[in-house]
Amino acid sequence: METTTKIEVRYPDCDRMGIVHHAVYPIWYEMARMDFFEAMGFSFADMNALGVNPAMVDLHLQYAATATYPQTLTIRTRMGEYAPKKLELLYETYAEGSDKPINTCRSFHIWTGPDNRSYNMEENLPEVYAKIKAAAGS
Amino acid sequence: METTTKIEVRYPDCDRMGIVHHAVYPIWYEMARMDFFEAMGFSFADMNALGVNPAMVDLHLQYAATATYPQTLTIRTRMGEYAPKKLELLYETYAEGSDKPINTCRSFHIWTGPDNRSYNMEENLPEVYAKIKAAAGS
Amino acid sequence: METTTKIEVRYPDCDRMGIVHHAVYPIWYEMARMDFFEAMGFSFADMNALGVNPAMVDLHLQYAATATYPQTLTIRTRMGEYAPKKLELLYETYAEGSDKPINTCRSFHIWTGPDNRSYNMEENLPEVYAKIKAAAGS
Amino acid sequence: METTTKIEVRYPDCDRMGIVHHAVYPIWYEMARMDFFEAMGFSFADMNALGVNPAMVDLHLQYAATATYPQTLTIRTRMGEYAPKKLELLYETYAEGSDKPINTCRSFHIWTGPDNRSYNMEENLPEVYAKIKAAAGS
Repeated sequence: METTTKIEVRYPDCDRMGIVHHAVYPIWYEMARMDFFEAMGFSFADMNALGVNPAMVDLHLQYAATATYPQTLTIRTRMGEYAPKKLELLYETYAEGSDKPINTCRSFHIWTGPDNRSYNMEENLPEVYAKIKAAAGS
Repeated sequence: METTTKIEVRYPDCDRMGIVHHAVYPIWYEMARMDFFEAMGFSFADMNALGVNPAMVDLHLQYAATATYPQTLTIRTRMGEYAPKKLELLYETYAEGSDKPINTCRSFHIWTGPDNRSYNMEENLPEVYAKIKAAAGS
Repeated sequence: METTTKIEVRYPDCDRMGIVHHAVYPIWYEMARMDFFEAMGFSFADMNALGVNPAMVDLHLQYAATATYPQTLTIRTRMGEYAPKKLELLYETYAEGSDKPINTCRSFHIWTGPDNRSYNMEENLPEVYAKIKAAAGS
Repeated sequence: METTTKIEVRYPDCDRMGIVHHAVYPIWYEMARMDFFEAMGFSFADMNALGVNPAMVDLHLQYAATATYPQTLTIRTRMGEYAPKKLELLYETYAEGSDKPINTCRSFHIWTGPDNRSYNMEENLPEVYAKIKAAAGS
């Protein structure tokens, strides 16, 4: 499974040099992550209702090229590794008409439960874990 | 050389779960980076005047614990590896009264010049390169 | 002339109380303003190319109701008063299925030119001033 | 009573024209508001503990001059009108060495209680209402 998220660069996303500020990408990747989870059948709204959260523990971005306003970008998101208590997502951002990503990202998450502690998705929400497996293509 | 940057968590830095949103840390690390370069004797204002920029190419954050409002944090910044055309910075964020970082970061930069292309700091600005060397303690 | 701008509330737009932070609306209204100018035939990209800018001098927002994530909002934008050197825009933000705005805004702008000083649009860019007139329905 | 809040302009606060983006001021005024309430003896942390909130209903900003990075600004905050269920705050932002504000703001708030409905501060928290009166100098 791969989801795509359209990003319209906003004027205030750009710094004084006219390029998208590097701190904007994590916000876009969060939007992409939400699209991914929604397409997988376990949306952020579902998570909120259950008190479950993919807590961010590691975020790694690589900046290959810049973007500017006005420009439309596409983020492609897919699952990386996963286990009952954790999850990795992989993202690539593309400018229109190019097949070489301008930015790539890897986010690593620990599932937390209503008590804010580590949460075993396979044991607690096996139907969601099945969706994760399916999304990972395994 | 190590610089310290005080961060006062702002209310809007926190998400709906009451913790600092993960996308806020890159902004704080940029503030820490500016303090570091200023202490080193080559401030962002100096860079702007010369058209030189430490372009972000890689940003890696690790989230060990959360922060909230109101809270005062301290970021400690030091140099990692460096070479004539590139530079690595290492950061650690501490809550008050703790010696275990809640967040750590590594940013990797390529020097770019007025033409927005790779820039050899040692050849073009040897006095700045000497400051980088001194800051790295080598 | 009236333009509509679709806004998808993002998770980080919400504060700890789960509602869109009040400081997010000015960013949305800027997006609405860009859509309006583009529809009018004088986009921000056109302005940048000419060094012309609608400098913000007055911004007035009224918060009638709150919004949250996930929610889709619509901003309706129209021209208010205008003169050769200035321009007023009026905005209303609607939740889906409601005809009562949750938020309204008025922004007042002074045209500035390449020298960053006041700029007479009617004298300098009469074809743009004609578009402003047409958009105002006058 | 008047409080002062020091603001260090951050690099990402500036837009592509090198000036502080207009949408940044509401965030700074919120910081100023927190300082004001804390000095008054009823901090945001106190409010959170009681479920009380000064809900924003009207925000009016006037932009007289611009600011840039690096620059230190000072916001002076004082009370405007108040009543048992509402409160107005007035703010002025100054650049160093100038006695003419670059930006002024007026925010108008309705007190809400734990049920998210209008809250009579005089009846429910008379000791806080006395502090509001004292802060207003009346």
